[in-house]
Amino acid sequence: MQAFDWYRRGLVLMLPAIWLAAIGLGLGACTQASAPQPTSGPVNLRPICLLTDYGISDPYLPQLKGAILTVNPNVNLVDLTHSVTPFQTREGSFLLNLAAQEFPAGTIFVVVVDPGVGTSRLPILLKTEAGKFYFGPNNGIFTRLIQREGFAGAWRLQNTKYFREQTLSATFHGRDIFGPCAAHLAAGVSPEQFGPSVPRSALLSDGTRMPSATGQSITAEVLHVDHYGNVITNIPRDFSPSLQDGVLLRVVAGTASQTMHHTKMVRTYDDLMQGHIGALYGSNGLLEICVNRGSAAEVLKVKVGDPIVVRP
Amino acid sequence: MQAFDWYRRGLVLMLPAIWLAAIGLGLGACTQASAPQPTSGPVNLRPICLLTDYGISDPYLPQLKGAILTVNPNVNLVDLTHSVTPFQTREGSFLLNLAAQEFPAGTIFVVVVDPGVGTSRLPILLKTEAGKFYFGPNNGIFTRLIQREGFAGAWRLQNTKYFREQTLSATFHGRDIFGPCAAHLAAGVSPEQFGPSVPRSALLSDGTRMPSATGQSITAEVLHVDHYGNVITNIPRDFSPSLQDGVLLRVVAGTASQTMHHTKMVRTYDDLMQGHIGALYGSNGLLEICVNRGSAAEVLKVKVGDPIVVRP
Amino acid sequence: MQAFDWYRRGLVLMLPAIWLAAIGLGLGACTQASAPQPTSGPVNLRPICLLTDYGISDPYLPQLKGAILTVNPNVNLVDLTHSVTPFQTREGSFLLNLAAQEFPAGTIFVVVVDPGVGTSRLPILLKTEAGKFYFGPNNGIFTRLIQREGFAGAWRLQNTKYFREQTLSATFHGRDIFGPCAAHLAAGVSPEQFGPSVPRSALLSDGTRMPSATGQSITAEVLHVDHYGNVITNIPRDFSPSLQDGVLLRVVAGTASQTMHHTKMVRTYDDLMQGHIGALYGSNGLLEICVNRGSAAEVLKVKVGDPIVVRP
Repeated sequence: MQAFDWYRRGLVLMLPAIWLAAIGLGLGACTQASAPQPTSGPVNLRPICLLTDYGISDPYLPQLKGAILTVNPNVNLVDLTHSVTPFQTREGSFLLNLAAQEFPAGTIFVVVVDPGVGTSRLPILLKTEAGKFYFGPNNGIFTRLIQREGFAGAWRLQNTKYFREQTLSATFHGRDIFGPCAAHLAAGVSPEQFGPSVPRSALLSDGTRMPSATGQSITAEVLHVDHYGNVITNIPRDFSPSLQDGVLLRVVAGTASQTMHHTKMVRTYDDLMQGHIGALYGSNGLLEICVNRGSAAEVLKVKVGDPIVVRP
Repeated sequence: MQAFDWYRRGLVLMLPAIWLAAIGLGLGACTQASAPQPTSGPVNLRPICLLTDYGISDPYLPQLKGAILTVNPNVNLVDLTHSVTPFQTREGSFLLNLAAQEFPAGTIFVVVVDPGVGTSRLPILLKTEAGKFYFGPNNGIFTRLIQREGFAGAWRLQNTKYFREQTLSATFHGRDIFGPCAAHLAAGVSPEQFGPSVPRSALLSDGTRMPSATGQSITAEVLHVDHYGNVITNIPRDFSPSLQDGVLLRVVAGTASQTMHHTKMVRTYDDLMQGHIGALYGSNGLLEICVNRGSAAEVLKVKVGDPIVVRP
Repeated sequence: MQAFDWYRRGLVLMLPAIWLAAIGLGLGACTQASAPQPTSGPVNLRPICLLTDYGISDPYLPQLKGAILTVNPNVNLVDLTHSVTPFQTREGSFLLNLAAQEFPAGTIFVVVVDPGVGTSRLPILLKTEAGKFYFGPNNGIFTRLIQREGFAGAWRLQNTKYFREQTLSATFHGRDIFGPCAAHLAAGVSPEQFGPSVPRSALLSDGTRMPSATGQSITAEVLHVDHYGNVITNIPRDFSPSLQDGVLLRVVAGTASQTMHHTKMVRTYDDLMQGHIGALYGSNGLLEICVNRGSAAEVLKVKVGDPIVVRP
């Protein structure tokens, strides 16, 4: 509730100032600005955080930003990442969950990861119990987030009054729907005004395949490759008690090569000699394959979405 | 006009507040800030949008941002893209036009794409009929923009009073001229104060080569490669009636290989089987070669500026 | 001093407005916001500039931004670069120095470049004589900066009251310490409140190896590769009088190949024919190897940190 009151409270605060300003104008007060001076106190631009698979070299991201600022210039655009691998909803779900966790209640997010062919993806607004607001497709991108922050409500974005003006049939949902609606929310529109409520049961899952164990082998998936080249799998810390510090681990990964790599489980990157490959639980609690000061993704020749099999 | 009044109106509004604040101070009002509270209403930081070929790993972009904030901290810096291919003015013209289209009247843009050797490139300010302001070189970067938004005026940036202070001979135009001038415009300086008016006829073209048809063959140019690997050509939708849905299209592209690729014209990416190459008109109205869930640029081995020949 | 007063002065200014607003509320003043209007005057969001080796595709950068905005939403986050080569403190020192130079007094910076294994790296706040504030590890990242801006004071970040709340043992210093402390500084906390003063003599150097001359040969280091592919060395303009315009220069670089490249010293990129390799002093005063409209890094097959030998 508090979040929605920001804007109205602001206008109320302004009323006497506007009245006094009118008097000031009536008295012929006039000033010539020579250089900007910081004269005002704290302000609060509502952050709108952007996480997409748009990349940073195309017109898609600028158009999203423009669509937001057209509706509401009083927002603070925050780039989270635009490098989600195209079509990889599960990587998006993983990144969004970690990216969002540090932001305060009231923060608004616009999330766009194209789920690709044949997937249902109604545009929705999600509110979590942490008091944050997420605009994006109902394609599973919010799965991990809801597990951590809790579900407080969801609404279908249906009221075209809050869409981009020129939009008749929206195909570019980020620019045409999510961005403008987020900007309206920041300006005081309430979630109910966007459309009918959506129950939690109607939210799609990201189809997270839990890793599967057959005998000693654990078959998993590459969830993300970070910019160091660390290969993050979907194997959580509590999945297998046999994956622990000091254990030798055989790794076969990717679709192209079937080369087996011999790694050792360690606690930190620095426990590995420079250039050596190893495995550890990252700060996110997931098993990752890494090379100290090198790229495990290059060594394993894998990319996001690839299968990966580990065997102690 | 409205845009320029923002700042002055703001100061006028502040006058009574400053007066009252003085009284407050006189009465010994004193407060100790313990934590920032959002107490103010809507504010309006003028957006300054940045589109360059600076990349994001070098000191050029930070220096541009610093030069702007030094002149005027009351602006909202918005990164559009910094990945224009170096020296590719036509790609810059294409990207700028699409990136700018969603921003509201009053928005200020700083545009830097180095035209390379031997090109005249006086620094100018362009105002379009859409009420937006563009700072950049007179090297054709504004060609597509003016076609869409209309020409409302241009001024040569000549008044060194608004340049970066330490600048004697400006070689780094973004930091030394465009950035500081844009920050001054946001602070209320009017276009005429920067220098003499420049007629539309003096604005250079981006030298857009229209595609040329000889017999069945259409010789065109690669205008942009997006981050999915889609290859966007300069062939507009109305160029050739023979390029329509369902037509088989032979494509020879690039300077290295002369391999012919057999593609099919489709309506959407999803009309192609995964991994198959095709052609379609993108949302920007230009013919592009694409691979469903793959990179057409890798298949064709092309880059921005390369020739491309298509034949139905 | 002035910088720290921004926030408090702001609150004082607000007092009468709040009082009047209370009256306004008492009189039953009520308004329904229909669309945001720019009603306020100039504001001043304190810039917090970010320079890291986090990349832009991972959760690290979003988490840093969230940690800052959680403490203090009234800041202007400015991305400088996040592409410092991991573990390359000297490249970070080079980039930070150039990136920071254009920002005004009072600007706050958060700098994170992981120095890698076994390096002491206490978290500190540095204030320069230029009146700017830098949060980062004491690992040499500030070496070049201090040479240019002067040392005005440093403090160890020790007061956990200003750290991220959930943080018991901080391993992710950017998010857990630097970001939150920077946000508190922007909100009015003074440097002394973070911890004990650190003398200049306790600041580590970036271990800048000056180039060494043996006979005619100069053995140097690759400090940075810019996005054009220019290879920037650590050879300053005044190091050797024999390196001047027109001189022929033999270059052997990198660890893999020992191929010798024959280059010519020129004044500007345009003095080289397209595709030709040359050498010149860049705007930063350091010798760089370049290829006109091409990538010298690709030709030389080098990366940041590699050795490079030049001989007139």
